[in-house]
Amino acid sequence: MEKNLLVTVSIVLNLVFIIHILYNKSTTWNPTWTNRAAVEAEEVASVSCSGHGRAYVDGLDVLDGNKPPCECNNCYTGKDCSFLLPDCPVDANSGDPLFLEPFWMRKAEKSSVLVSGWHRMSYLYQDGTYVSEELEKVIRKLHSVVGNAVTDNRFVIFGSGSTQLLAAAAHALSLTNSSYSSPTRLLASVPFYAMYKEQAEFFNSRYLKFEGDASVWKKSKGNDNITQVIEVVTSPNNPDGKLKRAVLDGPNVRTIHDYAYYWPYFSPITVPADEDLSLFSLSKATGHAGSRFGWGLVKDKAVYEKMKRYIQLSSLGVSRTTQLYVLQLLKVVVSDGGDEIFHFGYETLKKRWDTLNKIFSMSTRFSLQRIKPEYCNYFKKVRDFTPSYAWVKCERSADTNCYEIFREAKITGRDGKVFGSEGSFVRLSLIRSQDDFDHLIDMLKKLVSHEVVGADSI
Amino acid sequence: MEKNLLVTVSIVLNLVFIIHILYNKSTTWNPTWTNRAAVEAEEVASVSCSGHGRAYVDGLDVLDGNKPPCECNNCYTGKDCSFLLPDCPVDANSGDPLFLEPFWMRKAEKSSVLVSGWHRMSYLYQDGTYVSEELEKVIRKLHSVVGNAVTDNRFVIFGSGSTQLLAAAAHALSLTNSSYSSPTRLLASVPFYAMYKEQAEFFNSRYLKFEGDASVWKKSKGNDNITQVIEVVTSPNNPDGKLKRAVLDGPNVRTIHDYAYYWPYFSPITVPADEDLSLFSLSKATGHAGSRFGWGLVKDKAVYEKMKRYIQLSSLGVSRTTQLYVLQLLKVVVSDGGDEIFHFGYETLKKRWDTLNKIFSMSTRFSLQRIKPEYCNYFKKVRDFTPSYAWVKCERSADTNCYEIFREAKITGRDGKVFGSEGSFVRLSLIRSQDDFDHLIDMLKKLVSHEVVGADSI
Repeated sequence: MEKNLLVTVSIVLNLVFIIHILYNKSTTWNPTWTNRAAVEAEEVASVSCSGHGRAYVDGLDVLDGNKPPCECNNCYTGKDCSFLLPDCPVDANSGDPLFLEPFWMRKAEKSSVLVSGWHRMSYLYQDGTYVSEELEKVIRKLHSVVGNAVTDNRFVIFGSGSTQLLAAAAHALSLTNSSYSSPTRLLASVPFYAMYKEQAEFFNSRYLKFEGDASVWKKSKGNDNITQVIEVVTSPNNPDGKLKRAVLDGPNVRTIHDYAYYWPYFSPITVPADEDLSLFSLSKATGHAGSRFGWGLVKDKAVYEKMKRYIQLSSLGVSRTTQLYVLQLLKVVVSDGGDEIFHFGYETLKKRWDTLNKIFSMSTRFSLQRIKPEYCNYFKKVRDFTPSYAWVKCERSADTNCYEIFREAKITGRDGKVFGSEGSFVRLSLIRSQDDFDHLIDMLKKLVSHEVVGADSI
Repeated sequence: MEKNLLVTVSIVLNLVFIIHILYNKSTTWNPTWTNRAAVEAEEVASVSCSGHGRAYVDGLDVLDGNKPPCECNNCYTGKDCSFLLPDCPVDANSGDPLFLEPFWMRKAEKSSVLVSGWHRMSYLYQDGTYVSEELEKVIRKLHSVVGNAVTDNRFVIFGSGSTQLLAAAAHALSLTNSSYSSPTRLLASVPFYAMYKEQAEFFNSRYLKFEGDASVWKKSKGNDNITQVIEVVTSPNNPDGKLKRAVLDGPNVRTIHDYAYYWPYFSPITVPADEDLSLFSLSKATGHAGSRFGWGLVKDKAVYEKMKRYIQLSSLGVSRTTQLYVLQLLKVVVSDGGDEIFHFGYETLKKRWDTLNKIFSMSTRFSLQRIKPEYCNYFKKVRDFTPSYAWVKCERSADTNCYEIFREAKITGRDGKVFGSEGSFVRLSLIRSQDDFDHLIDMLKKLVSHEVVGADSI
């Protein structure tokens, strides 16, 4: 009897094991050649940096076979980034869009890409271009779900960030001008993104000259219909976040619309952009500034061809490795119509602006830009602007160097003069990591509380 | 007795199963968030395209959830690329370095990279630059194992292909000249890579003007020590594969050394390059033309800073995604001192040149460039040159358009005139896929056999 039981139990157990093994075989993928890369990525991702840093697979000394170290957020240090440096100045300078990093960590599975060692080694895609057709498709889809741009009857052009496309667009539009004696003038409304000026001055084409403020030009040369002019319109504007329109018009005027910030994180989507030449940047669309990817929507074929030629002669197109990565990221974004990422990003910035407004409401010395709420076609409601940057004005007439006042309070912003504006302005970046923002808030509180104490003591 | 046996067998089996399961648990990594990407990559890699094509994870219609299709090599078609198109012209035009693709497929496991969705989203690396320190290290290591360049006391600069670096270098060197009335002249020895001319003419800086052949300039202006001059020296040369030296010297002469082809595949490594400004390209170093990565070795700090500024204003550095990928590829290359990849590549090209020489030896109408073997410090032996391109001369005086003669024979090369040379030359690319090369050989055989038949019939 006992033996019978033993035999039965043992045989049943055997059956269970066989089923277990067969089931596992059929449902678990056994990675073969991808295994090494997958293990490496998972191991690095599991390195703990106390929530104040991150390890990367290409971190320092990995060549020597070492585990990559934690790369700590600003002001944090120690092997696991757990130590906060006292008296450390906060970095509120560049528009590093790390506020979106938590979203991508949440989407780890969907967003990762395995690049094989033989991935698209050729200069060309199958259709003979430098451009992934699927990536172009997903970009059109993205604009259609967000409603921030019309892509019908537009050519899509890729660049190494909108930086490269800006140079390409300015160059292409300046080529309509064949007179060396009077190069095309590049203009923008103050305050403007410094890159426009820096590029034009550095590249120093015979055809193009940076001329400064569009409004000043309009006043002095408003009736000049001969000099070729390019106006760069940044909307929402960098640094102040306002929606902008072109100042100039006329048969001699061409316009480049820089829509880097026209995403629901930063601004109500009031109307789909429907311009001749619009530029977008992955940096502010998904937060991947490091991947150097941007795109343009171009109506005119001749302008598109000239821009393409520019991109070809500068870099033979954008890295196919990067194009593959961007395709995967945008697939994740559009998979739910942008719902999750835009809500996440907007709510993050909304919270940050609420905190900021509270602090500045206690100050008479400093003021923030004010923009009236508008109806957002994406969120289907009236909403506040939540710009990437605080455009801070030092209100006291003695405070002519606002940047320096913040720097002394251990807050590194960007000087208003960089944007062609006054020294009484400073730009503070609000889209950086949560650590940077929290730190910024601490420092701002101190600065503003000193002001109140100072006022009391008068 | 029988029951005892049954019990024993069953228990032994149980033990075997238990051990099997435990062993699998402990040795098989169970990917979690990387699983999707790994499965996707393996599935796509296993798509069979008859050896005449390849499926890629970002292939057509993958957005719609379709399996990516085979992308067939030139002249092959059909769902699995098994059908060879009759009378199809062979493409021997661009220097698409697919001859190295089989190496990378062999190295599938070591060379693949898993990029997480949050990989280096920032503009900057930890050290505040746009440059991966580990990648810089592995590049120095690469030059040290190959012996093709001295990297001591050199700054390393990255670009989107050597294309971007060429423009950066020409711009940086032209800035020493502040006179608009006499811009710096850019020169190269005929035959030269057309990009030098195209870039200078298209970007049209006030400071730079393409002037043509360096030897012609030397003859006419050899004593001019005032006009600022930049000579581009390509060694081994594109198109003819010869090792070159600068033609010009003097206090007014700056030199850019384009060493894109100075790898053991193509040329004996006779001496480590030890120049002021040398450029290299991933395309010809590992075969990854599509990843748009190049680097420069720069001695002078001021020139390096100007080039860095150029790269910054054109694209804010090279995609961090691409830098990660390149790091992994170069890790594989240096892991055995380059032994496997350089032997594989050289032997592939050696075989191709042997076949080619045999065919051209039967021709009096066409001739190939001849370069004497030299001692190679890398392979430690005297070896033939095995250049990337056949630089073919049409010997008959009536054959003034050599490109056209080949085109009629269904071989698309690149016209000698593109390189500033004569129409009696045509360049044929030998570094493309094996299919392209085999096809080229078939067509060349036909062309040359016609010639012999023609000669017989006289």
